[in-house]
Amino acid sequence: MTKKSTAAHILDLLRDNGPLSRVELGDRLELARSKVANEVEALLSTGYIRDGGIAPSRGGRPSTLVELDPGIRYAAIDLGATSLDIEITNGALEPLASHSEDIDISVGPTAILERLNDVVTKLRGDDASRPLNAIGIGLPGPVSVRDGTSVSPPIMPGWHRFPLRAVLEIEYRCPVIVDNDVNIMSIGEAHRGIATSAPNFLFVKAGTGIGCGIHLAGRIYRGAEGSAGDLGHIQVDAAGPMCHCGNMGCLEALFSGAALKRDALAAAKSGASPFLQARYLAGATLTAKEVGEGAARGDTTCVHLIRNGGRYLGDALAGIVSFINPSMIVIGGGLAGLGNLLLSEVRSLIYRRSLPLATGNLPIVLSELGPRAGVSGGAILASDLAHRQPR
Amino acid sequence: MTKKSTAAHILDLLRDNGPLSRVELGDRLELARSKVANEVEALLSTGYIRDGGIAPSRGGRPSTLVELDPGIRYAAIDLGATSLDIEITNGALEPLASHSEDIDISVGPTAILERLNDVVTKLRGDDASRPLNAIGIGLPGPVSVRDGTSVSPPIMPGWHRFPLRAVLEIEYRCPVIVDNDVNIMSIGEAHRGIATSAPNFLFVKAGTGIGCGIHLAGRIYRGAEGSAGDLGHIQVDAAGPMCHCGNMGCLEALFSGAALKRDALAAAKSGASPFLQARYLAGATLTAKEVGEGAARGDTTCVHLIRNGGRYLGDALAGIVSFINPSMIVIGGGLAGLGNLLLSEVRSLIYRRSLPLATGNLPIVLSELGPRAGVSGGAILASDLAHRQPR
Repeated sequence: MTKKSTAAHILDLLRDNGPLSRVELGDRLELARSKVANEVEALLSTGYIRDGGIAPSRGGRPSTLVELDPGIRYAAIDLGATSLDIEITNGALEPLASHSEDIDISVGPTAILERLNDVVTKLRGDDASRPLNAIGIGLPGPVSVRDGTSVSPPIMPGWHRFPLRAVLEIEYRCPVIVDNDVNIMSIGEAHRGIATSAPNFLFVKAGTGIGCGIHLAGRIYRGAEGSAGDLGHIQVDAAGPMCHCGNMGCLEALFSGAALKRDALAAAKSGASPFLQARYLAGATLTAKEVGEGAARGDTTCVHLIRNGGRYLGDALAGIVSFINPSMIVIGGGLAGLGNLLLSEVRSLIYRRSLPLATGNLPIVLSELGPRAGVSGGAILASDLAHRQPR
Repeated sequence: MTKKSTAAHILDLLRDNGPLSRVELGDRLELARSKVANEVEALLSTGYIRDGGIAPSRGGRPSTLVELDPGIRYAAIDLGATSLDIEITNGALEPLASHSEDIDISVGPTAILERLNDVVTKLRGDDASRPLNAIGIGLPGPVSVRDGTSVSPPIMPGWHRFPLRAVLEIEYRCPVIVDNDVNIMSIGEAHRGIATSAPNFLFVKAGTGIGCGIHLAGRIYRGAEGSAGDLGHIQVDAAGPMCHCGNMGCLEALFSGAALKRDALAAAKSGASPFLQARYLAGATLTAKEVGEGAARGDTTCVHLIRNGGRYLGDALAGIVSFINPSMIVIGGGLAGLGNLLLSEVRSLIYRRSLPLATGNLPIVLSELGPRAGVSGGAILASDLAHRQPR
């Protein structure tokens, strides 16, 4: 992205603070009032902001408020391997309508886009005839933000180099930004979640796979090819099972939503877990949720599966913590629902194994936004994009 | 550091390009000539630059060159665990005098500083009565650049929070910057070595210990507490030997200058390596150098020690490469002298184990500056500091 303009700064302030007077804008931007007044005039003419009445008096001449146009609409889309979350927001990123459903990303882009368009149309209702102001969308696997495409995503036939941004831009006649699903979740936590004051933090998404969003010096870091944050294929046990990537003992092969499903099924079939066995025999699909329920009811095998998983995750993170020396670690994604049992093992491993200097002031916490992290980040990215080219 | 001023930009350009005309400065800075002329006048009055004669004609009015004052002097100091390297440079960072010697950092700051002052005085000769313009110094272990001190360095009694920057500033009456020794080496490679065009690169220093300088988006990243880049304590073999940090199977316990000394001695005593045994019996101290010599003469155990070490190093780096997705990896430090035998194993491990997308365009190369990397980076830091406060 290009350097942020004064206009974009003004729009960011109105998004994050609500209506402000020209005087307040000048104070916050540390700019001369005449300069701010000119920028505000230009923005008023775009229709992106409007007059918002008289500001409460601070003494001196009365100042008029400006505010974002209430008709601004963003679509924030979090496309995971097995889930689709969509939120329509206003300019302040307040959700106006939202929808979640299970999907299978491997059916390919055509079918997914069809479904996505149906949901967006339904969510927008009478509003659907007016163009959106911008769309922010997250995709699982590596993404080229520059090109707006997936790049070599594993187990996603048809998505490699599919021109998602271009297709959506034509469909919706608005600017579109495509990023990795883990990155958009981490951007959500950075702006509206638990990491708002952590300049260097790692957001771990523990879901079907395991990924990480890396925020350094207040900015997201995506890597040379956009694949930074791949935590799932760090080897944690050379004698471990084969991973779908072809290597042995990757974190994902030992602990992930997919691995936990596999282990839960085995524990149900062998009878090692009476709780899971009963659920299995009753016809339930066993996932992390059932393992969490079993642990809450004191099923020893379920507790063991979670603790063991936390140790593997902590193991992979211990080296990363020494190497990155982050100021915070946030654990999100579906497996974060396993809660404190998981968290305590992760913490224990990291605090024992990482460099003491790197862990002395290191909070390791659960996501604050939970399943909304992705759409929150998508809306942030959409508005950032729109603020750089208001129209 | 504060944001770079136009004056600092001008001084950087003169340092990196030699004498330039006001016209050329204006072109490169994309600034109006009157603005440049004013800045140049102000710099001329500080004595930091001087007129350098008439520029070769490009047509139109003749333009005068400006150049850095030839009397500018920086001291660049690379203090390792077992070595002291000092270079005195001019404003273009050309070495005017240099010195290297073996030391033992654990004798503490007082004795080291005494020796350091003696060497600097000797190197400066008749010049020693004039103050230096700035000093850049690297220290082993974690450093707080902001405070100018070591922070919790291992095996360095007396250095924790020793106010090195303040002491040197008083002694030399000039600005001083203190950074980690690995960081200054990586800064040398970034500016004057092999990594000048790699925005995201990792510089691995394989010496007595193993550390890493992290350059992301063109800037060095130091971490929340200044301890980022700790590669040596990533666990690569849970069943490995105990490390001096108290954990088991850290990279440093398996492969490092210290580990190689230990293994070389064992191979000499047991007779597993006839070459090392002969050297040992002849009274030589066995280090990485002797292992390298043995390998060059075809001693199988020496070859094995190096290949094995490369596998451990590659193992620790494989996860980091997937996680960081760097655009280049540079291997430096004393063990880089083991050359291609080491490099080939490191490459093999990383190319096999890291995410293919992260290694597709990833060069893994040896340091270009070799033992001069540290002082090169120290001189860069010293000049960067001086350019922000020319006097």
